[in-house]
Amino acid sequence: MIRVAILGYGNIGRAAEQAILSAPDMTLAGIYHHDSCLECIDSDVVLLCTPTREVQKFATVLAARGICTVDSFDIHGQIWELRSALDAVCQVHKSVSIVSAGWDPGSDSMVRALLTALAPKGITYTNFGPGRSMGHSVAAKAIKGVKNALSMTIPLGTGVHRRMVYIELEEGADFKTVEAAILADDYFAHDETHVIAVESVEALNNVAHGVNLVRSGVSGETHNQRFEFNMTINNPALTGQVMVSCARAAFRLKTRGGFGAKTMIELAPIDLLPGSTEQLVKALV
Amino acid sequence: MIRVAILGYGNIGRAAEQAILSAPDMTLAGIYHHDSCLECIDSDVVLLCTPTREVQKFATVLAARGICTVDSFDIHGQIWELRSALDAVCQVHKSVSIVSAGWDPGSDSMVRALLTALAPKGITYTNFGPGRSMGHSVAAKAIKGVKNALSMTIPLGTGVHRRMVYIELEEGADFKTVEAAILADDYFAHDETHVIAVESVEALNNVAHGVNLVRSGVSGETHNQRFEFNMTINNPALTGQVMVSCARAAFRLKTRGGFGAKTMIELAPIDLLPGSTEQLVKALV
Repeated sequence: MIRVAILGYGNIGRAAEQAILSAPDMTLAGIYHHDSCLECIDSDVVLLCTPTREVQKFATVLAARGICTVDSFDIHGQIWELRSALDAVCQVHKSVSIVSAGWDPGSDSMVRALLTALAPKGITYTNFGPGRSMGHSVAAKAIKGVKNALSMTIPLGTGVHRRMVYIELEEGADFKTVEAAILADDYFAHDETHVIAVESVEALNNVAHGVNLVRSGVSGETHNQRFEFNMTINNPALTGQVMVSCARAAFRLKTRGGFGAKTMIELAPIDLLPGSTEQLVKALV
Repeated sequence: MIRVAILGYGNIGRAAEQAILSAPDMTLAGIYHHDSCLECIDSDVVLLCTPTREVQKFATVLAARGICTVDSFDIHGQIWELRSALDAVCQVHKSVSIVSAGWDPGSDSMVRALLTALAPKGITYTNFGPGRSMGHSVAAKAIKGVKNALSMTIPLGTGVHRRMVYIELEEGADFKTVEAAILADDYFAHDETHVIAVESVEALNNVAHGVNLVRSGVSGETHNQRFEFNMTINNPALTGQVMVSCARAAFRLKTRGGFGAKTMIELAPIDLLPGSTEQLVKALV
């Protein structure tokens, strides 16, 4: 049994707990909070269900203790730097860190890589939603006069998105002023954005999300090869599940001596799954 | 540069040739026919574009010479046995064989494995077509009174398929008798099958194919997680491209000392692609 601990107990930590308890080859080795003593964690793998900006700090300490980590770090432009920093620690201390193991970055990345291998020339469009964007919701909430905000990402195709921003105004705030400030914010200025005042943002809350990932490309010299990947999912449940599946891969890589930090495109799908190679090849190939 | 040779020069061999010539990191090391001297082949990898039943014979000889092979062996029930047999040869002779590297089995298998990792409980349906089934076409052509035949696979959902069988009758053959024989054949008896007489089967010929792969499952304890993978493709072009992408993976595995036989679910998507880890992580994750 793989002993998996959780650090951080928000939506994703809770979902990861359920995925661990549902896994036939894992035991839950503890749930820890951000201020826990990292030296006290005794497990094979720790899932870092903390805010993204705290991932590197925790992963570094744990990897240096030889404990594998999995995170769902989601700042696309900084993934390579995180992977490089953790790779160095993991190589020295013989551990494995799987970085950016969510659905995007994460499982969508695996699909993008596979589709590029199937049709090397072409364009992939990743269309997100409909679903809540945490980054945009936080940005809208930071605007003066906004008490609470929810920004929904609506896919318009070819990677273009509409933002539907639902706001609860603070007492006395002027809607037109707030709306103008949101539309001028760098998070919203480049997309079609609609601002809507509502009584209660909480009443709209829904963790549904989705993706429509499309590639049209060329295999060899043959054009018009068309591929599409769609999903509609509960966001934290999928993220937690992906992290748990990657915990299995981290443990196996460490067992095989494949130390270092890896993103999901560097993992073989079979290592995400419980069971023997024979069972999985017979069931899935 | 990876030196890749082709053994067998039918539809798939020709498509593989185009994919090799389009690859930035490969050179074409020769095109060989079934009766060629295998001992004369000098390359890093050989693509076995031969009939499926000849794959094991050729792969065994080449693997024993330390040459990597890639095949698109497509008899689902015998893949594990082929992999096991070639694995033993590859381990002894330090080579790598990628087996069943087409689109199904092959890239679809990677998608099925990934979707199972995203929602471990649930059902995956693989719906094929519309497209030509070689096995069914050959079976229909073998019926007495049939001069030529084309069996199209039409997806009806939940893994159920309709067979549209277009036949050219031999001089004097009775349509009703031939139709009854086709409907009674074990290849067709279990599916909804329609037999249609045509003037020319060749006039209908089209290598288009497709898949609609659907999974609804449970992530952790959260139900109703829905995933779908669709493609509409030129069949030999995609098969040839998958084999060429897997030739790259075979070469890399051998370079890293990862000898043995593997199916595509045992490969990391990044190894299918040209470029450095840094380039690919930055572009795709």
